[in-house]
Amino acid sequence: MADAIGSKIWAIPEGYIPSKSTGPHPQMTSHETACLLNTGDKDAHVGITIYYTDKEPVGPYNLVVEARRSKHVRFNDLDDPVEIPRDTEYACVIESDQPIVVQHTRLDSRQAENALMTTMAFPLG
Amino acid sequence: MADAIGSKIWAIPEGYIPSKSTGPHPQMTSHETACLLNTGDKDAHVGITIYYTDKEPVGPYNLVVEARRSKHVRFNDLDDPVEIPRDTEYACVIESDQPIVVQHTRLDSRQAENALMTTMAFPLG
Amino acid sequence: MADAIGSKIWAIPEGYIPSKSTGPHPQMTSHETACLLNTGDKDAHVGITIYYTDKEPVGPYNLVVEARRSKHVRFNDLDDPVEIPRDTEYACVIESDQPIVVQHTRLDSRQAENALMTTMAFPLG
Amino acid sequence: MADAIGSKIWAIPEGYIPSKSTGPHPQMTSHETACLLNTGDKDAHVGITIYYTDKEPVGPYNLVVEARRSKHVRFNDLDDPVEIPRDTEYACVIESDQPIVVQHTRLDSRQAENALMTTMAFPLG
Repeated sequence: MADAIGSKIWAIPEGYIPSKSTGPHPQMTSHETACLLNTGDKDAHVGITIYYTDKEPVGPYNLVVEARRSKHVRFNDLDDPVEIPRDTEYACVIESDQPIVVQHTRLDSRQAENALMTTMAFPLG
Repeated sequence: MADAIGSKIWAIPEGYIPSKSTGPHPQMTSHETACLLNTGDKDAHVGITIYYTDKEPVGPYNLVVEARRSKHVRFNDLDDPVEIPRDTEYACVIESDQPIVVQHTRLDSRQAENALMTTMAFPLG
Repeated sequence: MADAIGSKIWAIPEGYIPSKSTGPHPQMTSHETACLLNTGDKDAHVGITIYYTDKEPVGPYNLVVEARRSKHVRFNDLDDPVEIPRDTEYACVIESDQPIVVQHTRLDSRQAENALMTTMAFPLG
Repeated sequence: MADAIGSKIWAIPEGYIPSKSTGPHPQMTSHETACLLNTGDKDAHVGITIYYTDKEPVGPYNLVVEARRSKHVRFNDLDDPVEIPRDTEYACVIESDQPIVVQHTRLDSRQAENALMTTMAFPLG
């Protein structure tokens, strides 16, 4: 399985990082993740653009997913060019120079017991 | 990333707004959301039609997602032409004059700890 | 929105009805649902076939989704030709004579607080 | 419904098996599952390759989904060539010699009440 599979553009309309958490950090911290899989033999250079309700898009946030590697990116950790605000609705578009596959997950531990949700991101090109 | 991406028709078969909630309003109120992402340079004019089990469809509920913006729409808040009843099974079709991407999420806080679920809506055109 | 949209064959590989529940029936009873949306002007005649781990498929379970209607079908309630056993892994294929859209949801209330999950079913034809 | 439906390659970017659980084994043990559905008349020979953040892919983990059968595979149980480490981010590609349909589910019972998430895997060929 050394072929590069997937798409080069992905969208995730539902973004929201709760500011509150219950339980030990970092595992149970409320977070939002984009899981990126690069099955190919070339490193994938990825740019994430964040869309907001009431201001212009921000980004790209740049990162590399190495060849034949998976990377789980926490939006909580993105800070260049600027941190993503908590308790704020956003969306994102993820662009890569190699085909990748992207899945979106949120762990919400605002209340005592955590909730989870996941979906494949929407592939565009 | 200024191209308009996505589809112009989306369907969400699973709709249900619980009438009960636990925790502070509005964050923890039981709700159902359609997250709409418009990456293009033109405002998207969107109409949502609600389908029921035992009566004719209702709508459209009209709204605008501005160019390069994300909008998280709570079905709880839709009231024109009429509010969506609680504790009632429904489905919806979302039509836009520009390509958009749509994700569906429910937060259910009927019990003490909230549950979450999400999926990409189904693209049709 | 009177066109029939969607596909005529859908698959849901992940089926499991927990035998235990916490909370009032029927809302909080552990259940698994296929939400069917028929946006067209003709009634959709639907057959559901259940696949098991260790025996031949069972079905079809027949039902109708009327024109311009949504129907949330609980697998818990299917009993013709035979009830689906609890605590048993299964999968299903849903076939319709009209295009429909199908979303899969489970509410699991085995423990004190319910968990939810959902995904669009997989369209095949 | 005896045709083989689905795809022969599927990807799941979000993999993670929590090491902690609450409640009776095996039902409530934290686990991650790939549900495989083979609707066709030929057995499907399946190979799962696991991708990591910081080392080369491992696999394939081989299994058979018999004709007209469903199989719910717990990643927790895979141990040939080697067990998948707990509390570790991974991703996977699932390849089959027959068309199948694949859905991904996680039950997380690290805290007192379990959380669930699911999504259709991403089809590739």
